[in-house]
Amino acid sequence: MPINIKNFLLSKSNKSKIGDFQDLEHIDGVGISVISANLYKEARDDLVLFYFRDGANYASVYTQSKIISENIKWNLSLKGNSAKALIVNTRNANAFTGKLGFKGISQIAEELSKKLTIKMSEDEEKKVSVKLNEILFGSTGTIAEKFPTEKIIKSIPELLEKIKYTQNKYLWIKAALGIMTTDLVPKLAMEECNIGNSEVKIYGIAKGSGMIFPNMATTLGYVFTDADIPPGVLKKLLKKNIETTFNAISCDGDTSTNDMVTIFATKKAKHPKISSINDDKLKEFDNSLNLVLLNLAKRIAADGEGSSKFISIEVVNAKTFIDAKKIAFSIANSPLVKTAISGADPNFGRILMAIGKANVNLNLKKLGISIGDIKIIEKGQIFSDYQEIEAVEYMRGEKIDITVDLNIGNKKFTAYTMDLTKKYIEINADYRS
Amino acid sequence: MPINIKNFLLSKSNKSKIGDFQDLEHIDGVGISVISANLYKEARDDLVLFYFRDGANYASVYTQSKIISENIKWNLSLKGNSAKALIVNTRNANAFTGKLGFKGISQIAEELSKKLTIKMSEDEEKKVSVKLNEILFGSTGTIAEKFPTEKIIKSIPELLEKIKYTQNKYLWIKAALGIMTTDLVPKLAMEECNIGNSEVKIYGIAKGSGMIFPNMATTLGYVFTDADIPPGVLKKLLKKNIETTFNAISCDGDTSTNDMVTIFATKKAKHPKISSINDDKLKEFDNSLNLVLLNLAKRIAADGEGSSKFISIEVVNAKTFIDAKKIAFSIANSPLVKTAISGADPNFGRILMAIGKANVNLNLKKLGISIGDIKIIEKGQIFSDYQEIEAVEYMRGEKIDITVDLNIGNKKFTAYTMDLTKKYIEINADYRS
Repeated sequence: MPINIKNFLLSKSNKSKIGDFQDLEHIDGVGISVISANLYKEARDDLVLFYFRDGANYASVYTQSKIISENIKWNLSLKGNSAKALIVNTRNANAFTGKLGFKGISQIAEELSKKLTIKMSEDEEKKVSVKLNEILFGSTGTIAEKFPTEKIIKSIPELLEKIKYTQNKYLWIKAALGIMTTDLVPKLAMEECNIGNSEVKIYGIAKGSGMIFPNMATTLGYVFTDADIPPGVLKKLLKKNIETTFNAISCDGDTSTNDMVTIFATKKAKHPKISSINDDKLKEFDNSLNLVLLNLAKRIAADGEGSSKFISIEVVNAKTFIDAKKIAFSIANSPLVKTAISGADPNFGRILMAIGKANVNLNLKKLGISIGDIKIIEKGQIFSDYQEIEAVEYMRGEKIDITVDLNIGNKKFTAYTMDLTKKYIEINADYRS
Repeated sequence: MPINIKNFLLSKSNKSKIGDFQDLEHIDGVGISVISANLYKEARDDLVLFYFRDGANYASVYTQSKIISENIKWNLSLKGNSAKALIVNTRNANAFTGKLGFKGISQIAEELSKKLTIKMSEDEEKKVSVKLNEILFGSTGTIAEKFPTEKIIKSIPELLEKIKYTQNKYLWIKAALGIMTTDLVPKLAMEECNIGNSEVKIYGIAKGSGMIFPNMATTLGYVFTDADIPPGVLKKLLKKNIETTFNAISCDGDTSTNDMVTIFATKKAKHPKISSINDDKLKEFDNSLNLVLLNLAKRIAADGEGSSKFISIEVVNAKTFIDAKKIAFSIANSPLVKTAISGADPNFGRILMAIGKANVNLNLKKLGISIGDIKIIEKGQIFSDYQEIEAVEYMRGEKIDITVDLNIGNKKFTAYTMDLTKKYIEINADYRS
């Protein structure tokens, strides 16, 4: 085991700027295996299998890039909404690897299908096979390098042998660590809620770091619930909640070829049948799913490459949701704003610059800007009580909230990002070596 | 004189990654004065006057930001196309300075108008006055700080006293230095060409550095010609040529409140009358103006904040000009591409990522990518002869050319930018101190 999870938990490196993550325990219907397939030079876990012995309904959202990785092509090609396995590898993105990259996935899927079918009949004496179209792939890492098909195929026996059907917090952390690339801390989140009178669980893990800007999913995020929700409803729930969560974070404005967020429902919980997203009994689940996705998304932004501060940018009282979003992301993606924040400089001139360039009609005489509880601009004027020294003090913190009040409508959007530091350059000027 | 120009020229600090600038000499009809109004803590020139004793036709393009500086508001409010003076200050952008900022400009304009009118009648015994609407303002520096109206008004007598009507290369360099903020090197360019049988000159200076992304002008650029071209034709020439020059550069994707490029024509050259942009006699001038603007624009990108490399990104054989431009800027604005280049890493995976996220329809099977003369991708495959070691060697240079061949049309666009380095963070995390 390359990483000692208990030591890791005792160390400081699991501290996120937005607080500790929750403990995930057991969720019915999920098997997890985490191993090293030696994809990295150094010893670390790099291959994670989620195995749904009795199947799981699922729904995914994928990158909006015009160049997509081979594993995303595979996932998109699947007919059907039921999954038996999700296999996630790091180190190699399997993007721009062409026919060979896709063939690699097919070979792995075939091997996995065969071996899982054998395992299943050994364990359970069931005559149920795992079909190719029940296997999903997640990949993250370097683009345009030969995909390590052989190494992964060779690791399948170990991967299957180590499947654990009862999870605890250490196993979830191990899985979250196993899908990381340049992330510094694992990302986990959970909620419990009711559907009817039955309690259901929503667990999630994610990895992020560089290359994160929404056109959609922006990273790897995997959510697991024991609820029994049909695939069509899962799809609607995911699409609805991704907009203000994973699609509200930006680390460097770049978009990956590999972004993928998937929710799996193992159907193990006993609750009244759900057949529509409009079912009142889904309300609590809907809110809880949003919380899990938002929690994961914030952790991704807080751990953006090289970040020293977590930044929330709330744009309120806009005419439209789109206007609010444009301005929030114009600020979140501005290198000048993000470097000022890394220097604890309350340089609201740069926030104004970013508002101005967003191509949204404004009424400058109504504009307000605050950081934390400190008003800087009110009605288009520097606020009479504004003391820069207080603002500098606030900017020294690890969590920075910027509020832009347009005062011309009632729509809002919050974007999440991090500051831009020398560390970002260091990491990215030297990524492959 | 805070800077000894001759020493400066002997030092290495005037070396641009794209070669030395040309020597500008004399151009008829332009008076120049460069002084220090003590706008900075340290001693340096910060106030530059261009004085057109006999008037000049002019045309301008300005920032597309929704928040514009007070001096741009002043310029936009002027009726008329003839200028007598352009006054440029650094240190303070006069943006988000409200009514007081605009009033400051009015006061300076009034003082300048009065004193220039007196000077004119003393020097020339002319009874010609300098009107308020013949005075243009350029400002650059920090946003939302009180505009130093008094300091500038107090400096007007010295400014007028030091006007030189005969320029040499040192005076032009002094002027180019006087409009700089965080620029490391002055930006100058020149061309000579014919209109009919008469030779005319086109001289230009510019300042750039941070906050540079086109929606239009992107920086301060001032071009002077002795040609006799009507304002309407000047306007068309400038708009046409700005698209592939100043609007083709990006340093950090940010857009200033203060961008301004203006061309002044002193009408001193004797050549056949020009009344239309379609006049064949204008062709050479049109090309030469493009060269001057492109030369200045490249110098701005090469001197982008913290840059160690100058990057040209040419996208060829696109279906439309817009498609080519989208992809070129998606690459030019990608922090992941720019940090890889700063680390001399030929990480074409990131170039692919940036191509993919540009939201342009592609035929991946036709895609080609080269750096310099080194083919990396051909017909969507890694080129058979590609040797990464050669690419790394190439990436160690100061000038990096990236060519993306879409092979699906015949339109092209070239964007210019620089790499993203720790120095950029240093400069911008600490800009105001």
